[in-house]
Amino acid sequence: MKRWISLYVENQVGVLAKISGLFSGKAYNMTSLTVGETEDQTVSRMTIGLDSDDATFELIKKQLNRCIEVIKVIDFTAKPIRQKEILYIKVSTHDEKERTELFRMSEVFGFQIVDYGKKALLLECVQTEKKNDEIIELISGYFKDIEVVRGGSVAIEAVSIPKK
Amino acid sequence: MKRWISLYVENQVGVLAKISGLFSGKAYNMTSLTVGETEDQTVSRMTIGLDSDDATFELIKKQLNRCIEVIKVIDFTAKPIRQKEILYIKVSTHDEKERTELFRMSEVFGFQIVDYGKKALLLECVQTEKKNDEIIELISGYFKDIEVVRGGSVAIEAVSIPKK
Repeated sequence: MKRWISLYVENQVGVLAKISGLFSGKAYNMTSLTVGETEDQTVSRMTIGLDSDDATFELIKKQLNRCIEVIKVIDFTAKPIRQKEILYIKVSTHDEKERTELFRMSEVFGFQIVDYGKKALLLECVQTEKKNDEIIELISGYFKDIEVVRGGSVAIEAVSIPKK
Repeated sequence: MKRWISLYVENQVGVLAKISGLFSGKAYNMTSLTVGETEDQTVSRMTIGLDSDDATFELIKKQLNRCIEVIKVIDFTAKPIRQKEILYIKVSTHDEKERTELFRMSEVFGFQIVDYGKKALLLECVQTEKKNDEIIELISGYFKDIEVVRGGSVAIEAVSIPKK
């Protein structure tokens, strides 16, 4: 089962190595990671996506809580969240028809063309991970020569009252 | 000096721990990291921001190239790039005046209000790191109770001809 957690950690050299070492040492399956500063410069916050069963997930949370550099673990399971990922796709285009196709797709699928070259266009998509998966599948069905860069999902708890 | 590199690495358990261990072991100052899949499922791509002098930077590149899990190191210094970062700011609001202020700021500074609650609004900014720094400074000058989550910058080489 796919899950998301958020970690508040000390903003120190070595903390990222420790957390990622904890995951790899136990062969826990981290599927996504982002890390950035917070409103407090001594604290970083990580958003981690992972794939695990219930028992392993409880174990992971317990082990993270045991790290002295971890300030707080937020489990997003069963919480309403807002979540986005940046995706860049560089698409090599060979003729006018291909470029027209990409501009049409950008209107339909909600991505942006942020750079325009003689041999390639650059697409920027800021969507959920699932929507970005779909866009990559779509584009790779039409274009063979593509370059994909994904940034991983950033998540935060919603502020509106969750719908029941 | 602030620099950006992009790493193609094997998509395997332990690679992130190894790369981040390499940085922390030598006390290299990694200021930003994102990691995500590419068009090839066996390969991940990292965007790393770092702060270093010329000599240290050459050393870091050499050491990264020596890791067997590293497929390719791309140095973005002196290359035109496109680059964005996701930033969420949850702002506690106490009255109508504060909410009005935030909605006005969103129009002026190009961020979006993506969630609306009785006690807080959620802002989403997808901008460059520098622009996001400015938005955090702006918001924290007006509102005291904020929660900041940043995802780190994702970068890719531009496709248009660089301006001289």
